[in-house]
Amino acid sequence: MSATLSETSAVSVAELCRAAKRASRTLALTETTVKDGALLALAQALVERAPEILAANAADLEAGREQGLSPALLDRLALDQRRIAAIAGGVRGIAALPDPVGEVIDGSRLANGLDVRRVRVPLGVVAVVYEARPNVTIDAAALCLKSGNAVVLRGSRAAARSNAALAAVAAEALSGAGLPGAALTLIAGGGREQLAELATQSESVDLIIPRGGEGLKAALKGVATVPVIFAAAGNCHVYVDRSAGLREAQEIVLNAKLQRPGVCNAAETLLVHHGVAAAFLPAMLEQLHGAGVVLHGDERTRALAGAVPVRVATEDDWDTEYLGLELAVAVVDDVQAAIEHINRHGSGHSEAIVTRDTAAARAFQRAVDAACVYVNASTRFTDGGEFGMGAEIGNSTQKLHVRGPIGLRELCTYKYLVEGAGHVRA
Amino acid sequence: MSATLSETSAVSVAELCRAAKRASRTLALTETTVKDGALLALAQALVERAPEILAANAADLEAGREQGLSPALLDRLALDQRRIAAIAGGVRGIAALPDPVGEVIDGSRLANGLDVRRVRVPLGVVAVVYEARPNVTIDAAALCLKSGNAVVLRGSRAAARSNAALAAVAAEALSGAGLPGAALTLIAGGGREQLAELATQSESVDLIIPRGGEGLKAALKGVATVPVIFAAAGNCHVYVDRSAGLREAQEIVLNAKLQRPGVCNAAETLLVHHGVAAAFLPAMLEQLHGAGVVLHGDERTRALAGAVPVRVATEDDWDTEYLGLELAVAVVDDVQAAIEHINRHGSGHSEAIVTRDTAAARAFQRAVDAACVYVNASTRFTDGGEFGMGAEIGNSTQKLHVRGPIGLRELCTYKYLVEGAGHVRA
Repeated sequence: MSATLSETSAVSVAELCRAAKRASRTLALTETTVKDGALLALAQALVERAPEILAANAADLEAGREQGLSPALLDRLALDQRRIAAIAGGVRGIAALPDPVGEVIDGSRLANGLDVRRVRVPLGVVAVVYEARPNVTIDAAALCLKSGNAVVLRGSRAAARSNAALAAVAAEALSGAGLPGAALTLIAGGGREQLAELATQSESVDLIIPRGGEGLKAALKGVATVPVIFAAAGNCHVYVDRSAGLREAQEIVLNAKLQRPGVCNAAETLLVHHGVAAAFLPAMLEQLHGAGVVLHGDERTRALAGAVPVRVATEDDWDTEYLGLELAVAVVDDVQAAIEHINRHGSGHSEAIVTRDTAAARAFQRAVDAACVYVNASTRFTDGGEFGMGAEIGNSTQKLHVRGPIGLRELCTYKYLVEGAGHVRA
Repeated sequence: MSATLSETSAVSVAELCRAAKRASRTLALTETTVKDGALLALAQALVERAPEILAANAADLEAGREQGLSPALLDRLALDQRRIAAIAGGVRGIAALPDPVGEVIDGSRLANGLDVRRVRVPLGVVAVVYEARPNVTIDAAALCLKSGNAVVLRGSRAAARSNAALAAVAAEALSGAGLPGAALTLIAGGGREQLAELATQSESVDLIIPRGGEGLKAALKGVATVPVIFAAAGNCHVYVDRSAGLREAQEIVLNAKLQRPGVCNAAETLLVHHGVAAAFLPAMLEQLHGAGVVLHGDERTRALAGAVPVRVATEDDWDTEYLGLELAVAVVDDVQAAIEHINRHGSGHSEAIVTRDTAAARAFQRAVDAACVYVNASTRFTDGGEFGMGAEIGNSTQKLHVRGPIGLRELCTYKYLVEGAGHVRA
């Protein structure tokens, strides 16, 4: 059984990571049917043992209320039968996805007759560091295990009992189904020293994925020697071109801002071509205001706002990910100015143009430096599920290894398999 | 013109990197024909202006001799007409390669009708930090520019005049052919402070590739916030299975050890199945000894060495990349023991099995955790040129982003281009 709350106090993080590394050697060679069987067993165990998970969660919630956690945080922390069923459903969904391990990416026969193929293989040990939401314990574990990786989880103190219960249920189900015990390891306790110890196990841990706020990222950036993929902030833009269909533009802006304002692919700035600003902005601003969106505009925007209150946008507004009902709005001279604004202020996440002009669409898609560049669609589609990857463990705004949704394929590396008949180099 | 020796003293590394970032925006959109034309102009300028390059090189060599540099280092530093012609030929070869930028990696139409394609794009600014060999100045620049990246070069003090002359010739040729001036930047001076400044420009530099010894890597590891791809050491193995063709095995071992002992894909340890050791090792050890190879063996190897001197192998020998005429030799019980030895001591570079047994070949290729895993071929083939990538900037033993040869494709990232017809998320 994998290490849980009580055990980790006696075992160092380094030792746990080394055990995970050994388990990863076995996992890399475990057949898909065994991995999928283990995931289905895990899903079933979650449902069957919901009472003990909910009891642990109730204790976390009670402690959280005593410590004065905000209602939003308490909601993120809370589990119930329905949420547990949803987590189990997610695990079954991951079990049903194609196995990325062993996929031949490309290959060829060299001039000298050597046969080369590049094959996807697991990274090894993936550590996921996360805050509050206990569902991540299971979501992250399922994605890592399906892709043949051992997983090391480090949750937050506030969810310690919930995470321990989930991990205990998971570990028992997984090892019962034939996976090595250290395939899943939960590191208990939320101290910064433990995080630092985890982040420096470069001999045994192949990747750390932080899922949390800027404080967590900053804490990792300073100390990590293990490679980190930052699921960074999304300062996303919608640019409404002169040629845009205005009704289409309106719907895309409302969707990108309002459909789920608290997530990284929601829009934070609206840019409008000056040639269409007078026709588009007054009604758009009114709609946004009516929906409760606080607006920050440049001069040209404010001149078109009529009775709608629009605050003076500061330089900071262009750089801010509001993650809520706030939007910065600017009028720009042309698509080139929109591109420059986005490349200066954007975070490289998701950017959209609304246009009927092929030249503007092409210029925008080529020049905007971001993970996902949309033409006539909402930024909200940047998501592993939406992209047909089945699930994701986050969204990467960095350029190395993975950009955009981090799915099963992105939790893998590759190796070259080369076959000869006694070939030697001349 | 790009900044060279004299200019950089007045301009900070941070400013140079920001200028490179601006240039990278233009380079990312520069057509293949323009990039190739600039590379051909660069090749021609190198040949035409060889005299001034050789004069600068002569000054470096003289200073190096005065400072007592070793003959090996002086040889690596030295340029002549023939070497300059070879560098120019390499640039022409890179110009002739297919452009990776714009290549569609994959794509699909989602259930909701959105068209998604994943397209290769440049990383942006790639910094290459290297030692001694001045040819890297041009090789690295050509690979980065062909893949649409701006390049920032930081060579060693010993080659400062040579690098400055090469960079000046290159910068003039490139900007004369229409590339932005800051497409190529040479950072003069070899101080550790400058290296640290370069390694922390995460706002403008997208990747650092160190080409040099362990000291350089250690210096970067401590300070870098920019992503680094380490072209790490190659502690490579050849495993001779019980079923191996012995003549084939002999040729592969000799090739892997002797064809070029000083490089990272040369073999450093020979493992032999105990069932074939008595038939294989005596003659093999004699041949290696006859070729001047210093041997370190375990007990079972030494028992079979006859008159050939074989030192007692220590635990350190299994972990050592000799990079010269030395080889560690061990007898193992089976392919499983070979795999375990390699996964414990190898550096994840290139590993070979010689066998006629499909089960052993399959077990080895699946379980050995390395960038390149060979069956019946020499480890020496791990090379961008050999793999049909045209050229390489190094060999990666890390797992994120790139494993094995780093060619044009690996100097790129990707972005998702998504096209809709007013799509919003439900």
